[in-house]
This record gives sequence, structure tokens and C-alpha cells, in this order.
Amino acid sequence: MIHMTSRVLVSGLREHVGQTVSVSGWVNTLRLQRKMQFVVVRDHTGMVQVTHKRGGEGDEVETALEGLTPESAVRITGRVVDNPIVKLGGLEIIPESVEVLNRAETPLPIDEQTGLEHRLDWRFLDVRRRPQAQLLFAVQTTLEQGMREYAYRQGCTEMHTPKLMGTASESGAEVFKLGYFDRSAYLAQSPQFFKQMAISAGVDKVFEIGPVFRAEPSFTSRHATEFTGVDVELAWIDGVEDVMAFEEQMLAHAIAKVADAHGEAIQETFGVEVTVPTTPFQRITMAETQEILRAKGWDPAGVKEDLDPEGERGIASYIKEQTGHEWVFVTHYPTSIRPFYHMRPTDDPGVTLSFDLLWKGLEVTTGAQREHRYDVLLKQAAEKGMSTEPMQDYLNAFRYGCPPHGGLGMGLGRVLMVMLGLDSIREATFLFRGPNRLTP
Amino acid sequence: MIHMTSRVLVSGLREHVGQTVSVSGWVNTLRLQRKMQFVVVRDHTGMVQVTHKRGGEGDEVETALEGLTPESAVRITGRVVDNPIVKLGGLEIIPESVEVLNRAETPLPIDEQTGLEHRLDWRFLDVRRRPQAQLLFAVQTTLEQGMREYAYRQGCTEMHTPKLMGTASESGAEVFKLGYFDRSAYLAQSPQFFKQMAISAGVDKVFEIGPVFRAEPSFTSRHATEFTGVDVELAWIDGVEDVMAFEEQMLAHAIAKVADAHGEAIQETFGVEVTVPTTPFQRITMAETQEILRAKGWDPAGVKEDLDPEGERGIASYIKEQTGHEWVFVTHYPTSIRPFYHMRPTDDPGVTLSFDLLWKGLEVTTGAQREHRYDVLLKQAAEKGMSTEPMQDYLNAFRYGCPPHGGLGMGLGRVLMVMLGLDSIREATFLFRGPNRLTP
Repeated sequence: MIHMTSRVLVSGLREHVGQTVSVSGWVNTLRLQRKMQFVVVRDHTGMVQVTHKRGGEGDEVETALEGLTPESAVRITGRVVDNPIVKLGGLEIIPESVEVLNRAETPLPIDEQTGLEHRLDWRFLDVRRRPQAQLLFAVQTTLEQGMREYAYRQGCTEMHTPKLMGTASESGAEVFKLGYFDRSAYLAQSPQFFKQMAISAGVDKVFEIGPVFRAEPSFTSRHATEFTGVDVELAWIDGVEDVMAFEEQMLAHAIAKVADAHGEAIQETFGVEVTVPTTPFQRITMAETQEILRAKGWDPAGVKEDLDPEGERGIASYIKEQTGHEWVFVTHYPTSIRPFYHMRPTDDPGVTLSFDLLWKGLEVTTGAQREHRYDVLLKQAAEKGMSTEPMQDYLNAFRYGCPPHGGLGMGLGRVLMVMLGLDSIREATFLFRGPNRLTP
Repeated sequence: MIHMTSRVLVSGLREHVGQTVSVSGWVNTLRLQRKMQFVVVRDHTGMVQVTHKRGGEGDEVETALEGLTPESAVRITGRVVDNPIVKLGGLEIIPESVEVLNRAETPLPIDEQTGLEHRLDWRFLDVRRRPQAQLLFAVQTTLEQGMREYAYRQGCTEMHTPKLMGTASESGAEVFKLGYFDRSAYLAQSPQFFKQMAISAGVDKVFEIGPVFRAEPSFTSRHATEFTGVDVELAWIDGVEDVMAFEEQMLAHAIAKVADAHGEAIQETFGVEVTVPTTPFQRITMAETQEILRAKGWDPAGVKEDLDPEGERGIASYIKEQTGHEWVFVTHYPTSIRPFYHMRPTDDPGVTLSFDLLWKGLEVTTGAQREHRYDVLLKQAAEKGMSTEPMQDYLNAFRYGCPPHGGLGMGLGRVLMVMLGLDSIREATFLFRGPNRLTP
């Protein structure tokens, strides 16, 4: 069918009162009465009522509307009429033609009562019908745009590092293995090694947003087997402080952009306020953190080296009480729980020049200054009992003039999850992947 | 060592004449004479000469410079002096201290004579030492920025679709298979199915830049087993023309940005001019293309359905002769060589509403309007002899009101390759992956 009128978005209808236009969207609700037919059509900008008075036999519009089902994709052409009685902006469309582009089967497989896992099975309908999900991806877009804006201004280069590796990175566990012609390959569990190679390749500041893969059988609300990582690596740093300063500035810039573009909508839709953080964020060492937590009764056995979720929430609420700040860098993690390539201060080899960044008590980033001296790297790998042979390609990058550097890896879904107050990373991901979920 | 002066980039030294500053970079060349020591230091913005008059015993600077090797990472603190005799900007640095941050081993494993494959083994050194490679990633950054700028303005949403799939997409061949806990998973050979799911999820315009994986044993100059794809999918289109119009506008915008930021440098470094394309690009059907090519002697046996590289170059040079344009959309590919989900015109089911975009005779994009009607999709899949059962999750997206849509997938490396006149996709990728290459 040829339609001569061009599409108008629902949000723009007010400017077309009295004109004949086409709107394209989904049937949100249908009310088919004896004399009148009311259809609410929804596009990604809003909803509008289509009002038709039945014309009886031979009324093609009546027949078309009568055959509609909820969520069918339609194009409605008609006159925009000002009608103060109508909710949805005081406008309605008097249809002249109705084109059913894709009729939805009935009943729909999910509704408002459907639980999370079943919603994920029908994620496309779940996202289409829930304003929260629609807003989430708009927020994601703005957040990334804000981070890139900051990164580009700082001179970052956008890199795409390989996800296929010839040997398992860091540790053999937690890595997916695949058949690669006549041998095996592995999926990168972070761009770590490759972004360091980019530093050694003379890229001054590396920026990458891409997938990372973790073969961990974790079923928590914050773990996934595939997620989107935001990675930064900075050359010629004077210390790990440079990395933390970069991150807090990047986040403050990006979150300000989100607050500006979506702050009101987020408040309405999620009931949370987006607070633009002041910089610098708080910094506290792991030793001090544990001292504070233990004084409050955390880890009574005194055996924990790392923070568990309870500890993360504990230190976050302490910082929030003391300073009002939602963000905190926990620094100087013990060497025993950090990878071999984290740099250690010369005067205290028991800790690393590393940090985690917590937002409202959830870890959203791990970062560090990296050890860039080949001999020290070898020594630290040996201390961890690692065989250096499978990582010789990585280690080679430190033999011919690798500058001091450091960086961070951030989980995009986690940032969105905290920002919007979501219960699970599953809600912050378009198509979640976990040990039990590879579909749709 | 504590250094009290902050880093100045080589490109900014002119503003610091007479002051003491630090520069950080790599030893580009060393000339250690009997009385004088000359070291050229390179950072990502340029090169500067460091000039030291030997002081004899106890001269720490002399000792440090004497121990340097090419490509060592150094921080040099000294006074910036105006000296018109010196090449490299008529400036030199008189060093007060020399800090060796990472001494490079000698000899370097590659030099100017090293062939491509061996250069790729030491890609970090290859990229660091070749101005072409440095510029390439700056161009990549600007190109992506330009594409995103256009896409965001058009209302695109940045999506991250999964690379892990529960079933092999499209065809079992050419797909990498991996162990996934107690079962198997597959790597997505394009975001195709998932970006269509995003369309059905109500995302109006989808944008994604991410890795795609092809288990093809191809050894050509333009194939890789992992490459960066630029993917777009547009909902509510009136036809495939909407997709082509989007792409040509996006490319024209992004290439103009590249020409503006790097045009001169590209001319100097690669010896090629970046021509900002005029829009619209040329469009020609596959049938017409083959007629033209056959008249010139292509495919004398008359058996080829698809264009081979020779055919692609042939039609491109024909269009260039006729119109002066470097770009051409070849449209209406035969149904037999396009996937089942490409839409077919009602009046000619032998062809598809699809296109390839060629730039200077190389295919850089494939696109199409997609078939969004469930019953037609089933029919087309059956005609191709495909079992629909493994793709039921995909097909479900068309059962509940999927709007008309179409999109494109572009190879980022190919665009860079053509733009900069490179011989191989290997040169347009940071760390190339092919059937025989999984390292470094």
C-alpha cells in the first residue's frame, strides 16, 4: 500500500493539528465499543488515541481496527484533532486508513505479572512494553556518549582489542575455550593484556567499550558470563592517582550528561534521583577500611583479606555518613588478592597500587598502576606460581621500552544498575548471559 | 625518583623556551660522540633533540645517556633552548636529569626491512615505530566519532548485543563453537539477529560497534576471523532506500570529520587524498551491473551469480569513469545468494531488497530491508532448506508486532584500508586474527 503522508512521531503531533498525518507504532490498548472504536497507539516518543465512529458495512477502517490485537505494529493515517477531553495530550487522530504491518498473536506470552526469568525469555516484548527498559537504553547511550566525550578530550584513542586469544589469559580457570581450526582459542576475560600492548605500541591513552567473557558459574544479581566493559589505560602516569583522577572526572562528566538529559524521566520512571558526584571522590586504604569495618563487627574471625558484599556496603555507608559521598575508592589491596601485574610500592610489597571503586556499596571498577618493568613482572609472576611461558607474547611488550602506565576496567551494566536502582544486572542488560542462560 | 617538573608534550615545547621541563618518550636515535651526546626523544606528538656536553667523571647525565638504547622509555628533565641550527623545530633540550623508565633490550627484533608477518609478531613495536600505524588509530577514533555523531543525531540507541549464542546463527558453518559449562555455545558471526530483536523491542534505531567472528579459512588481504563491525538497524522504514540514505549520510559526515582532522597528515604519511563523498552515492542494480561487466568481458561463461573481486573492481571503475564517484551501491542481489531474512519485492521474488556498498571497488558493507512478517520468514527459510527449530527464539521476535525495518553491517577495517590505501586488512587492525594467527 502506498501511503503519501510521511511519518510523524507522537511527541510531535501537537504541531500538526488539523492536518492529515501518519503515525507508526504499536497497539497499546483497544476499546471496541458498539458505536465507537478507541485504539491507543504507542511509539518510542509517546501515546496517542485513535478515535473512530463505526461506519457499518463497507467501512474499511472499522474492519481494520476490529481485527487489531494488542502490540500489533500499525500505521495509522488520519487527521489530528484537538480534543481537550482526551487524555494523552488533549489530541486524537480520526483515522482515514489503517495499515496492519505486523499483527501480534494473542495472547501475549508475558504480562505485568510475569516473573523475571520468563520475562527474559521474551525480552523483546519485555523491553518494548516497559518504560523502564526503554529509558534504560537511552540512558546507556547518553552515559557512553559522556564517557567518550571526556575520554576524547583527554586524547584517548578508541581501540578494538581481540577477544580471541591463543592462550588463556591470567589464569586458565574462568576462561571459555573454543575450537579454532585445528587448535584451541580462548575468549578474553578482559582487554587487560591487549590494552597494555597498545600502551607499549605508543598509544598514549587507550579507550575501549566492548564485551568481556567470564566462565564463572556465578548466579548472583551482579554477575554475568558476558558483559560490556569500559576500559581505559593511560601511559606515562606518575602514579595510580592519575588513573583515579581520570575515572572520577570521566564519571562526573558522564553522569552530569545523564542527569541533564534524563534526570527527570529517571525520577519519574525509576523513582531515583541522579546525583552528579563532586570530585575528588573519597579514597581510603584497604587496611583502614578493614579496621573501620572490624570495629563495627565485620569479619569477627578476622580472616578475610578481600571485601565481601557486606564489607563493600559497610564501608560505603560509613563514607556516606562521614562525608555524604556515594562513591569511594578503596586502595592498596593486598598483593595476595591482586594479579601479578599490579605494581607494588617499593616500601610495602605486601600491597598493590590498586583500587576498586564502589558506588553505593557495589564494586563498579577495578584499576591499578601496572608493573611495566620486565624483570619485576617475571619475579611477581613467579611468586604467584605462574608459568610465564604461555604469556610470553604479553611479557615481550615490556622488554623494549614500555612506559609506566595504569588503567581501569568498569562494568557498564553495574553502573546502570546502581544509577537506576535495579535489583539485578539482568535488568541492565539487553540480552543477559549467565551459566543457565544463552537465549534468546 | 621524584621529579618536580610536570610533563610537557614535544608539540608544546616551543611555549617553554628558557624553562626547565620534563619530556617523556622513547629514544628514537642516539648519537654518542667523543665530546657531545645527542639523543632524539619521540613522544606521540613529535620528536626533540636532547643535547649534552660530556662532563666527564661524576657526570650522571652523561652516564645515563651512555647507557641508553633505541626505544628505551625515558623521562628527560632539562632546559628548553632555542637553537635555529637544530632540525626538529629549532629547539633542543639541555638535560639536567635523565630517568630511564624502561630500558629496551638490543637489538630490536624488527627493523625497517622486516616483512609483514614478522612485524605482526612484534606488533607493539611495529605500531610504535611507524607513523602510519600511529596515524591509523587516530583516524579510526575520529571516524567512529563521526559515525556516532551522525547516528546519535538521528536518534540511534547504542546497543551491546551478546556475542555468545545458544545456537549457531544463520548457518552452522563459519561459526566458532565453544564449551559453555555443560553444553555448547557459538560466537555471533554478526549482531544481525540481536539487532533485529532490539527493533522488535521497540528501539527505534540501533547502533553498535563491536567484534564479529567468522570461522572462515580465508587467507585473503581482506578477511579476518575477528573484526570490528559497525552495525545499524532502523525501524519503521519505508524501504531499503532509507537504509542506503542513512549510510551515505553517516559516511559523508564521518569522512568529512576525518578529512578535517587528519587530511593533511594522511596525504603526507600515506600519500593519499581523503575525498569527502558527495551524496547521494550512485545506485545500480545487480542485473545492470552484470550486463555492463559482461559487455566488457567479465565472466565469459556467464555463470556467476555474485560479484567476485574482479567484478567489484570492474563496476567501481565503470562508475568512476561515468560519474567520477568512488562509491556505489549495488542493489537487488539475487535471492539465491542472500540470506533467507532479506525481504523480496512482491513483484520479483527472484531478487532481494538488499545492497552491497563498494568503495573504490572493495565491498565495505552489506545491507537490506529485512523480512518482518513471520509467515513469510518461515516460508523463505523453508525454501532455503533451513530448519527453523534452532532459530525459534529469533523467529519469535516476528510474532508479536515487529515493525518493518532494515539495516547494514560495515567492516571498520575495510573502510580504513580503502581510505588509507593499505594493501591488507592486517595493517588496518591493531592485533590481526586469521586462521593462522592468534597471537600476539
